[in-house]
Amino acid sequence: MIPVNPDRFLADLHALREIGASGIGKGVVRPAFSGDDIKARQWIAARMTEAGLEVHIDPVGSVWGLAAAEKSLLIGSHSDTQPEGGWLDGALGVIAGLEIARASIEAGGPPVSAVNFEDEEGRFGVTTASTIWSGALSLEVADELTDRDGVTFADARGAMAHLVTGPFVDPARFSGFLEMHIEQGPWLDQAGDTAAVVSDIVGIRDMRITFEGEQNHAGTTPMHMRRDAFQAVSLFNARLNDRLRNVVTPQTVWTIGHINLSPNAHSVVPGKAVFSMQWRDGDTDRLSRMEAIIRDTAAEVAAEQGMELHYSSLLGLEPVPMDVGAQAALKAAAETHAKGRWRALQSGALHDAANLSRLMPVGMLFVPSIDGISHAFEEDTHEEDLVKGLEILADAAGRWAV
Amino acid sequence: MIPVNPDRFLADLHALREIGASGIGKGVVRPAFSGDDIKARQWIAARMTEAGLEVHIDPVGSVWGLAAAEKSLLIGSHSDTQPEGGWLDGALGVIAGLEIARASIEAGGPPVSAVNFEDEEGRFGVTTASTIWSGALSLEVADELTDRDGVTFADARGAMAHLVTGPFVDPARFSGFLEMHIEQGPWLDQAGDTAAVVSDIVGIRDMRITFEGEQNHAGTTPMHMRRDAFQAVSLFNARLNDRLRNVVTPQTVWTIGHINLSPNAHSVVPGKAVFSMQWRDGDTDRLSRMEAIIRDTAAEVAAEQGMELHYSSLLGLEPVPMDVGAQAALKAAAETHAKGRWRALQSGALHDAANLSRLMPVGMLFVPSIDGISHAFEEDTHEEDLVKGLEILADAAGRWAV
Repeated sequence: MIPVNPDRFLADLHALREIGASGIGKGVVRPAFSGDDIKARQWIAARMTEAGLEVHIDPVGSVWGLAAAEKSLLIGSHSDTQPEGGWLDGALGVIAGLEIARASIEAGGPPVSAVNFEDEEGRFGVTTASTIWSGALSLEVADELTDRDGVTFADARGAMAHLVTGPFVDPARFSGFLEMHIEQGPWLDQAGDTAAVVSDIVGIRDMRITFEGEQNHAGTTPMHMRRDAFQAVSLFNARLNDRLRNVVTPQTVWTIGHINLSPNAHSVVPGKAVFSMQWRDGDTDRLSRMEAIIRDTAAEVAAEQGMELHYSSLLGLEPVPMDVGAQAALKAAAETHAKGRWRALQSGALHDAANLSRLMPVGMLFVPSIDGISHAFEEDTHEEDLVKGLEILADAAGRWAV
Repeated sequence: MIPVNPDRFLADLHALREIGASGIGKGVVRPAFSGDDIKARQWIAARMTEAGLEVHIDPVGSVWGLAAAEKSLLIGSHSDTQPEGGWLDGALGVIAGLEIARASIEAGGPPVSAVNFEDEEGRFGVTTASTIWSGALSLEVADELTDRDGVTFADARGAMAHLVTGPFVDPARFSGFLEMHIEQGPWLDQAGDTAAVVSDIVGIRDMRITFEGEQNHAGTTPMHMRRDAFQAVSLFNARLNDRLRNVVTPQTVWTIGHINLSPNAHSVVPGKAVFSMQWRDGDTDRLSRMEAIIRDTAAEVAAEQGMELHYSSLLGLEPVPMDVGAQAALKAAAETHAKGRWRALQSGALHDAANLSRLMPVGMLFVPSIDGISHAFEEDTHEEDLVKGLEILADAAGRWAV
């Protein structure tokens, strides 16, 4: 096993959370390409250099610490955060990659490279930099993407242009990819387990639905004559909940997280509602059956309530199984370091590993999220679980490395 | 009967709609204190002067055309509009007041004064100027009110300060108030009637309700562990619709017109929902029974769904019955000019007349809204109905004037 240093690992994690510290709990604020995000990336690059890795910063701000060997195992994640982020999230996987690569150089172990992808949190989409690197999104198209304030990806990455050291790294340099991440869900914390070997990353379907009825005066329009777009959404939601229960598993999730009414005023019957519909499952067939139910229910409600119905294009991310060899290495390592206190788990969240699976075999390890909380300043994990996670990952890296 | 001139009345209505014309249909854009609103008020003041009325502009921008007599009948409404307004709405009542006052001077009829209240549409509240004039809202408190952009009423009325001719008019000058308005609802249009004598203006209850659950990742939070604020609103709405049906009449209305989710993102289970709940009815007891059902249902849903529940203060406007004498005069006039083609109707919308009822006896006349549309560029009324309305109002004014 690569002899990692838990104290140095924890010290680096705590040092990193000082950059962009929210001042509320351990929370951090480092959205992609913000000043603190860039500062954090420079700090990590400096640690990589100290460790004896060759630092490379690519055109979209991903920071690489490359092993000297022609072929190496890649370990990492991302250090950018949500606007209100936790200190671990992707930073945990970045520092774990740094520590394992560093320890392996010190001990003369197998070649390990570390990576810190940019904009995993999706200021400009979803897992932006790793999507581009995987070839699924061209830089030209990505450059046109805008954040909520209308800033383009091209302009945002311009803030790091002076730090770029060269073009994109050749994926052929890497034999595989390992990513450690917090679970972001409650299963490990509730079971009292220390870690989870990820079996697969769920598929996601996401679209916007619009019901367009008739805007009217909320005092003078009788109930029976209304074509109230909010009422249509509410009815759609109630029916959908009933109908989906027949096809889902306990792991399936669906969410209406966004809704905009027009004109969104107390005294006006809303004429239009635009809302998001997102659903996730590990099985492509089930995702499709859910889509059919969603579209049938929306059409039925639209017809009953006198609504025009529009859909945005459907974002579809397919489920991604983790590599069998990577899972075997992680399971053997987990059984060594946390005997009987680990489990296999599906990832309900998307990760950079999903993109990298297009290029190489990938594996993922989860550590618990206390109370299942993530994407919030309150996000945390017990330090003994962080260390156990590091040890499992280092052991698996040793077993799986070239 | 005061011998009104329908052609002059229609010509004035069409001339007024050129000020702030939207360019879409007959629509107009004249929010309170906007450049076009002020221009319209100056144009109306000029017509009042030409008619021989004494023009007075009070500190909140209401424009008065005062008859010379010690006591006169007041007729009018408001010429400000919603951000997307119809050409008639309140402008109809203002020009009707102008025409009747003008015709009465020409014919040596009874003394009639005309009025054009400011901000009936509620850029800074609801029926702002007439509320202040009625004594229900002090100018000091009103001056602190802000519009959606944070502009204060004090700053907004500053734009008309150079036009103000003196303090508020003494209400003792008037024996009563008549207001003609479009119905803003579908009843007259559907029945094919020409006019309605308003029996009363419904009461309104309005508040904001907040459900606060827990914000979570939409991929990793299992359905059974969510405390999703949107789901709470949807369940509340469905149950409320069921329960209210047992206590309401066909005229009762209730509306959720506004909802804001936090953080309002596709991939996040919404932790918080703030939404409006407004209900209207002509009967105070029924308004209270509805309030009890609303609060009970919200509390029940909050308990079941693990939500914190908060209410804003309740806005309460009591139902306002129209004066019996005014109704009798309007009914007699309606039967004379539109025999068998008028009805008594409750007003579901609030009007300046509701405030004036605190100061003097009031009466209201409605003309039809084509397809029940108002607060929209498409709002319209057939011109023969506008003229019939004017004739009924002029006849009633003659019967009811001092």
